[in-house]
Amino acid sequence: MSRPGLPTAVSVEELRAHLDGRWADVRDRSRKLATDPRFAVAVGEDVETQRANVLNRMAALAEGGYSSLGFPTRYGGRNDVGGSVVGFEMLAMGDLSLLVKAGVQWGLFGGAVLHLGTERHHAAYLADIIALRLVGCFAMTETGHGSDVASLRTTATYDPASQEFEIHTPYEAARKDYIGNAARDGRLAAVFAQLVTGGQSQGVHAFLVPIRTADGSPAPGVHIEDCGLKAGLNGVDNGRLSFDHVRVSRDNLLNRYGDVSADGTYTTPIANKTKRFFTMLGTLVQGRISVAGGAGSAAKVALAVALRYGEVRRQFAGPGADDEIVLLDYLAHQRKLLPALATTYALHVAQSELVTGLHDTTPSLDDSVAHGLPAEDPARRELEARAAGIKAIATWHATRTIQTCREACGGAGYLAENRLPGLKADTDVFTTFEGDNTVLLQLVAKELLTGYRDHFGELDLIGTARFVADQAVETIVEKVGGRRLVQRLLDAAPGRDEQSDLLDRAWHVELFTWREKHLLETVARRLRRAAGADDPFAVFNVAQDHMLLAARAHVDAVLLGAFVTSTDALPDGPERQLLERVCDLYVLSTIEAERGWFQEHGRLTAQRAKAVIAEVNALCAALRPHALTLVDAFGIPEAAIAAPIAQGAEEKRQSELRA
Amino acid sequence: MSRPGLPTAVSVEELRAHLDGRWADVRDRSRKLATDPRFAVAVGEDVETQRANVLNRMAALAEGGYSSLGFPTRYGGRNDVGGSVVGFEMLAMGDLSLLVKAGVQWGLFGGAVLHLGTERHHAAYLADIIALRLVGCFAMTETGHGSDVASLRTTATYDPASQEFEIHTPYEAARKDYIGNAARDGRLAAVFAQLVTGGQSQGVHAFLVPIRTADGSPAPGVHIEDCGLKAGLNGVDNGRLSFDHVRVSRDNLLNRYGDVSADGTYTTPIANKTKRFFTMLGTLVQGRISVAGGAGSAAKVALAVALRYGEVRRQFAGPGADDEIVLLDYLAHQRKLLPALATTYALHVAQSELVTGLHDTTPSLDDSVAHGLPAEDPARRELEARAAGIKAIATWHATRTIQTCREACGGAGYLAENRLPGLKADTDVFTTFEGDNTVLLQLVAKELLTGYRDHFGELDLIGTARFVADQAVETIVEKVGGRRLVQRLLDAAPGRDEQSDLLDRAWHVELFTWREKHLLETVARRLRRAAGADDPFAVFNVAQDHMLLAARAHVDAVLLGAFVTSTDALPDGPERQLLERVCDLYVLSTIEAERGWFQEHGRLTAQRAKAVIAEVNALCAALRPHALTLVDAFGIPEAAIAAPIAQGAEEKRQSELRA
Repeated sequence: MSRPGLPTAVSVEELRAHLDGRWADVRDRSRKLATDPRFAVAVGEDVETQRANVLNRMAALAEGGYSSLGFPTRYGGRNDVGGSVVGFEMLAMGDLSLLVKAGVQWGLFGGAVLHLGTERHHAAYLADIIALRLVGCFAMTETGHGSDVASLRTTATYDPASQEFEIHTPYEAARKDYIGNAARDGRLAAVFAQLVTGGQSQGVHAFLVPIRTADGSPAPGVHIEDCGLKAGLNGVDNGRLSFDHVRVSRDNLLNRYGDVSADGTYTTPIANKTKRFFTMLGTLVQGRISVAGGAGSAAKVALAVALRYGEVRRQFAGPGADDEIVLLDYLAHQRKLLPALATTYALHVAQSELVTGLHDTTPSLDDSVAHGLPAEDPARRELEARAAGIKAIATWHATRTIQTCREACGGAGYLAENRLPGLKADTDVFTTFEGDNTVLLQLVAKELLTGYRDHFGELDLIGTARFVADQAVETIVEKVGGRRLVQRLLDAAPGRDEQSDLLDRAWHVELFTWREKHLLETVARRLRRAAGADDPFAVFNVAQDHMLLAARAHVDAVLLGAFVTSTDALPDGPERQLLERVCDLYVLSTIEAERGWFQEHGRLTAQRAKAVIAEVNALCAALRPHALTLVDAFGIPEAAIAAPIAQGAEEKRQSELRA
Repeated sequence: MSRPGLPTAVSVEELRAHLDGRWADVRDRSRKLATDPRFAVAVGEDVETQRANVLNRMAALAEGGYSSLGFPTRYGGRNDVGGSVVGFEMLAMGDLSLLVKAGVQWGLFGGAVLHLGTERHHAAYLADIIALRLVGCFAMTETGHGSDVASLRTTATYDPASQEFEIHTPYEAARKDYIGNAARDGRLAAVFAQLVTGGQSQGVHAFLVPIRTADGSPAPGVHIEDCGLKAGLNGVDNGRLSFDHVRVSRDNLLNRYGDVSADGTYTTPIANKTKRFFTMLGTLVQGRISVAGGAGSAAKVALAVALRYGEVRRQFAGPGADDEIVLLDYLAHQRKLLPALATTYALHVAQSELVTGLHDTTPSLDDSVAHGLPAEDPARRELEARAAGIKAIATWHATRTIQTCREACGGAGYLAENRLPGLKADTDVFTTFEGDNTVLLQLVAKELLTGYRDHFGELDLIGTARFVADQAVETIVEKVGGRRLVQRLLDAAPGRDEQSDLLDRAWHVELFTWREKHLLETVARRLRRAAGADDPFAVFNVAQDHMLLAARAHVDAVLLGAFVTSTDALPDGPERQLLERVCDLYVLSTIEAERGWFQEHGRLTAQRAKAVIAEVNALCAALRPHALTLVDAFGIPEAAIAAPIAQGAEEKRQSELRA
């Protein structure tokens, strides 16, 4: 094994500049904002205090210009979609209730008005939304229907006589549930409901419905409940909304993708109902990308706390020695934290790529107001699937990593003052909101299988019998990389040669790509073989774990592609050398976790699988001296770390750096 | 594959009687107690209200006789150690702050006075402790030393002139930390400190130190801090204690294992210092067994909530169908919950065995008061290692299972009213208190390797070079089973025959036993080979993951042994048939998770590994109709489930159907 040596002098600043990337200015502004005492992370406030404080912080964000990034300039925005997602990611290092409330207000509610509405809605609301003069809700989820948005039960029935829609909740399980800003602060809600006109349902559309009067009491016909205490995010006032034949003007339909004329005639620029539905949902991709970024930030803060503590906390003297051993010197402790750190790096670069993709495939917000529909763009379709996959993997990674960090800090990790309990509780819902992770991975698998947006949303996967495996496989390479470097690595890959170096990047890329291809081919074959089955659900169901695995394999390959291309952009030097080893640890710890599968499919011998485990141990030992450098490169504001157990370590480190 | 059919009519009562086992009466009394409205699970109380309510509930427990089980009859106890642990396990289905506060008062503090003290302490305190007239603390952990108890820094220096001990905290990191009952209610603390007399340290001993005066203010020289908000368990008043040269009478030494005469002479019935230390700690095994049982109960409640919800919540219509599919009909949902349910069963029966072992190896509490030291019993030593291993695996299982259940309930699972957030947050610390899980597994590995208590506590594992692998291996069979049935299965095992049925129990037992044996042999060889190494810590460290894996494999084998013997005790019938399949799912999902290792070691071909995955799917499908039966058999009081999604889901569904 030729394991390249690791540099001793790595520049945190250069690493940070590399990670900060295209929106470094947004990141730096966020870091400055974090020093404002109004944003200090608080612990132990009661629910009402938290809610009040979070609303005040929202005002401070609006005042600081944070809220304007993702809106058209004519309404006071800055027409910078990518910047707004990066800003959200940075916000996640601090108060996570603030993050989610900001996401509801400016991402979901503001995003619905911007992307689903037209100029009349923009002119009426956007400036007030940006400035927080109008607080709104995104009322999509119902008690009985969350992931299956197409089946929402709330109705919006058009009455030509009065030129109004009647918004109605037909029974209790159709009430809007878990709605942020509903319990306390919201005035107007974007309510998703089945549009019915002339006795015909046209599918789900969004309507602006006032939920409170000027004095803050519920609007007539609107019933509001508080969801009460949650595991975390208690600074967000989640609530339930029911509508009893509430009437709103025809103009309150957010009519970009479907409109109703005065006489009740329905018109739409997208005739296919399924396609229309997914185009509407597609405008919400930004929310998923934002959540993935927020999860990454929370994982980074947790790792910063645990690694700093692991550097100073000592436990047990070594054999024949008096000095107690620093926790992070134990292999078991390194194994808990360092592969998680490597995966956090992989997710960071994949996230950056995703944000760039979102930014570059989104028409200028200033233009789109005039131009209406965004162009039908295959890159955009691919982006949506990738966002779904990365959101699932990033949020599960955050949940697992924060849990591990809590345990790695023992009793100290259980104290609220040390941030880990809050990080865990607040981010816990990330795995199921903005799309349940299991449902999202299924979406990814379906997108990979069909290659066509048109088939999205139809559970009838037997339709994928039309799928030709080889075609899809060709597109994978493009999806993993779409880049010459990855192709070059694939061309150079040793194939099934078991003799290649464990750290050979070409072998890594080939292995990850082959895995995705093989899983897709075989699941497609299973589904195709069963095309004429009596019970199509049963056929789908027995292959469900296989489909989910294919989606995971795809995300693994996407992460590796992003890591490879990102690191390749760095000039030769100690920072690049370090990142190459971090990438090795990401790859080999992933192979280690999946080594059962690789052995089953003839891609890893027993001996080589054992060598992978040994190499993960060796990489942990090699990266261990660089753990704090790697964490420092995230550029987490000190105010956001804010854990007493993480403070002593930093002082020690600073004095070491000075020495 | 000959997969035995599953019965349709299973008696929940018979299953429950089987699970309830020897202390069924204690379980039934606990179930009755749970109907008392004073014990209703509350949500959203502020910290001070929680603390006050939990103290009131403690009083109700004392009044109800709960607290008397584990104490000698002469002081009002009931001399029933096993019953007291089972009572604790049942308590964990309700308010977990109450559980932990009860554990601190009657398990740890009361246990220290009982097991480490002598008759003068018993006579002075036990009756008051049982009746809650005296609230106490177990002040062992320090900020700087938790797992490494032998290195505690608090000192107790004997002064022959005054015949007093001076209890002192030499510096901040030596303060007692995370101490239950310290912040608010405790009056007396069992303080663990280095006993120093005549200038010589005799190691850690426990001393009774008053920490508050009659009016509740800190006793002179005692500094008390509140640990503040925690992730959960906020009904427990954890605090920090520092001692500034606090003097207590010579009588306040809990002197069962070491005493100091008036002139300062130290005497002890156990001359070897290390052995004495571990004998003292060994009396605390009950705490670990109790935590393991508590973790199991919390996992059961979480599974009850998630499985009930999974039975009524519907999502997405099947292909070509109108009816939406019940969540639990999805393979992915079954895979989330059913293997966890099977492991919960395995842990339940292993726990019952552990409690029986504890009860049967503990001298009568009434006799031991007179007889002093418990007998040196090899079964007791084995029990301590087994308790450590099961505590680690049971608490990690609870953490993972509750997390999975939360996600399986989506947004509803995030609401405090649905119990999962509280279960998660309250039990989170179980993985690191009463012994950090990683440290505990290391203890298990060391016990397996050395076979001798004497080597416990010396990190110098190189000493295990004396270990003869074959000897230890012989003892494994005894440890897994110690029972004729397991030996009979081993004799019948097909060995390396890959052709045997995947559901052949003899193959299961042989595979689990072989794995443990192989891991132990190989780690012993690694350590022995390195006996003369320059850096013994480095040698230990590179094998640390290997050691931890050996310990896990041991616990897996213990669980299987317990499951096999427990099920074998049932008469033939539908209940036994069902439990055999649950055992299959436990075994095969464990093999599936470890199939990389089994392939690496030539015990599973690629083809057979794939068959294991398919068989787990098949078992999930087969057990799915019995999921609620299996949960009902736990006999969780309805008041303890208390989650609207677990209670009213069926009614909501009916109203939806009517609408």
